[in-house]
Amino acid sequence: MILLYPSECWSLTCFLLESRGLCLAEGSRGILMVPFARYLAMNKLKKMKRYQVGKVWRRESPALVQGRYREFCQCDFDIAGEFDPMIPDAECLKIMCEILSGLQLGDFLIKVNDRRVVDGMFAVCGVPEDKFRTICTSMDKLDKMPWEDVRHEMVAKKGLAPEVADRIGEYVQCHGGISLVEKLSKDPRLSQSQLALQGLGDLKLLFEYLTLFGIAEKISFDLSLARGLDYYTGVIYEAVLLQSPGWAGKEALNVGSVAAGGRYDGLVAQFDPKGHNVPCVGLSIGVERIFCLVEQKMKASGEKVRTIETQVFVATPQRNFLRERLKIITELWDAGIKAEMLYKNNPKLLTQLLYCEKTDIPLMVIIGEQEQKEGVIKLRSVASREEVTINRESLVAEIQKRLSES
Amino acid sequence: MILLYPSECWSLTCFLLESRGLCLAEGSRGILMVPFARYLAMNKLKKMKRYQVGKVWRRESPALVQGRYREFCQCDFDIAGEFDPMIPDAECLKIMCEILSGLQLGDFLIKVNDRRVVDGMFAVCGVPEDKFRTICTSMDKLDKMPWEDVRHEMVAKKGLAPEVADRIGEYVQCHGGISLVEKLSKDPRLSQSQLALQGLGDLKLLFEYLTLFGIAEKISFDLSLARGLDYYTGVIYEAVLLQSPGWAGKEALNVGSVAAGGRYDGLVAQFDPKGHNVPCVGLSIGVERIFCLVEQKMKASGEKVRTIETQVFVATPQRNFLRERLKIITELWDAGIKAEMLYKNNPKLLTQLLYCEKTDIPLMVIIGEQEQKEGVIKLRSVASREEVTINRESLVAEIQKRLSES
Repeated sequence: MILLYPSECWSLTCFLLESRGLCLAEGSRGILMVPFARYLAMNKLKKMKRYQVGKVWRRESPALVQGRYREFCQCDFDIAGEFDPMIPDAECLKIMCEILSGLQLGDFLIKVNDRRVVDGMFAVCGVPEDKFRTICTSMDKLDKMPWEDVRHEMVAKKGLAPEVADRIGEYVQCHGGISLVEKLSKDPRLSQSQLALQGLGDLKLLFEYLTLFGIAEKISFDLSLARGLDYYTGVIYEAVLLQSPGWAGKEALNVGSVAAGGRYDGLVAQFDPKGHNVPCVGLSIGVERIFCLVEQKMKASGEKVRTIETQVFVATPQRNFLRERLKIITELWDAGIKAEMLYKNNPKLLTQLLYCEKTDIPLMVIIGEQEQKEGVIKLRSVASREEVTINRESLVAEIQKRLSES
Repeated sequence: MILLYPSECWSLTCFLLESRGLCLAEGSRGILMVPFARYLAMNKLKKMKRYQVGKVWRRESPALVQGRYREFCQCDFDIAGEFDPMIPDAECLKIMCEILSGLQLGDFLIKVNDRRVVDGMFAVCGVPEDKFRTICTSMDKLDKMPWEDVRHEMVAKKGLAPEVADRIGEYVQCHGGISLVEKLSKDPRLSQSQLALQGLGDLKLLFEYLTLFGIAEKISFDLSLARGLDYYTGVIYEAVLLQSPGWAGKEALNVGSVAAGGRYDGLVAQFDPKGHNVPCVGLSIGVERIFCLVEQKMKASGEKVRTIETQVFVATPQRNFLRERLKIITELWDAGIKAEMLYKNNPKLLTQLLYCEKTDIPLMVIIGEQEQKEGVIKLRSVASREEVTINRESLVAEIQKRLSES
């Protein structure tokens, strides 16, 4: 029996998306921004700032790259509204930096470019306008293959004139900071494009704001960055890790980008019956890819992560103590203490001890005949195996004291 | 242009589920347990305890009842594994009580029954076995219509003999506590069913554990509770609010049940190629329905809820202070303070003040020419409109002090 769940509707979804004229590029990301744009249009919202975590689907063969799935979880942050240039865009990059620093994935770099610079560059290099998108797709592969192979694809497969490809080649190998932005603004060929100049002007402003935000050294203006999606209309960015975290000397894990985004000023109008528009800028965090990295890192370092938060385990060495355990666990739960016990009438003490060790539960409460008779209870530290006997009535207070100290 | 998203695949999903022999009853809930059961089977897990929040879909006309949607968010908690009778079942009811008490929705009651008691009752009353499910569906309507109407449906529409319906009628009007369980265990007719006796035996044990958990007074053994889903094999339960929260004297909002669940011991085997089984018990919380209630309650009481968590707003009364605002907000962000500003080069002070009042941001930082010249900055309490001037360098410390005091 096979069940079809919404999560398995991705191919259907992608098919329908495309049949309705919306491009879901092979291997594209950031699909949460489409429902966001639709939401803005349907509710006639003129501005909104929100983050969202949800499942998204990608049309491609699975497992091309480790940590790359067809169905995956993504976290999007977007700022919609008519604002002054590059202020929300700079905030998106600041947030990206904060998240990636916070996750301690190792050193990272955010590549930045502008769709207008890409298009302007194509125009001045002599790419025919009907080839812009397909050449853009080739260019997008520059993080995975060398320029020579991309050039070959452009010329042999996509029919670009070799001299045009070579002109592109000169640009896409450039990367740097604000000085490169300024240099290219004066580039005799590129400055012929008004579109490119607009993009460069905004990038200059962006770098100024990024400097004020204290993150300019994390950002690299990179002319090879194209970003496959058609939606983008202005600044685009993509974060890459500079080294695989945690395993020096081991084979690096190729995970591609861990976060990306850009400005998409035309998408909301596509969903609005009257074509009213709301400019947007946003970013996506590749949650699953980052999980994959963190898992590998922990595996390599032998680090163990607790998957449960249980603070206290209620155990007994004797038979017929279920009711007493239920009473004790009720006291603990009612006091807000995270407690667990085995769902057995008469579990073995060894089973209970092993469960606590396996799941790193720090404390055990042990009740038996002797303790019950004397009105006391045993408290055992799982790590040190030390046991103390305390008064039954002071159980909750004693546990709270211990938990607050640890 | 209409986009089909996974959230819109519900009808397709339901259709396919049903065409594969799995019943998704009209208006049924708890659909997250199906993927959970499949997950256990696919990963050959013998036990697991987990909660999950996700979107689920329901096959019915929308908006039959307020707060009842076709696509809605649900929170499920389930315990899977071979354990001793009624221990995990009792924990599910304890958790249900904790959640409903914690949400402060007003007084509530959890109706409890057992699928074996329902089936046994049908058998001894003389319902033909092939009518069990359809009579069960009729019985499930007892929370919405009186017994007379349900009886009419059973007899006129479903062809049940009137005397059989009347026998059922005697039982379904019974509800009570452990004493009713004991009374029915000795009922001359019902005790002829081994199945019913098994169910009643487990219910007795359950009530014993619920008493130890301190929640027996919230639970009512109710023979009218049937629960539509075919999955259930043992204890079943459903939480109802006893009065609409917050509006005494106003028309009560009919929201139906806010949480429900039960034991489903056969579902995992349906997904396992070899038919291996894992018994399960769980519960679903109707998140959207509860949201709907809470919203209505707040609307009635005029309570306002903040939708953002911003602690500090960075403002200026003068032109050309964008860069200074960016510097200040960076300091605040880097210190972990939740701060915001308008994405405008030269916003009006009034706009900034109104934004803070509208969104209940408690503190404003105000920088202008005078302040900049003197190396100071203004701190304004939005509620009291009091302003103090402090040293520019002590800004973060002063804000942290104020936030920790509030």
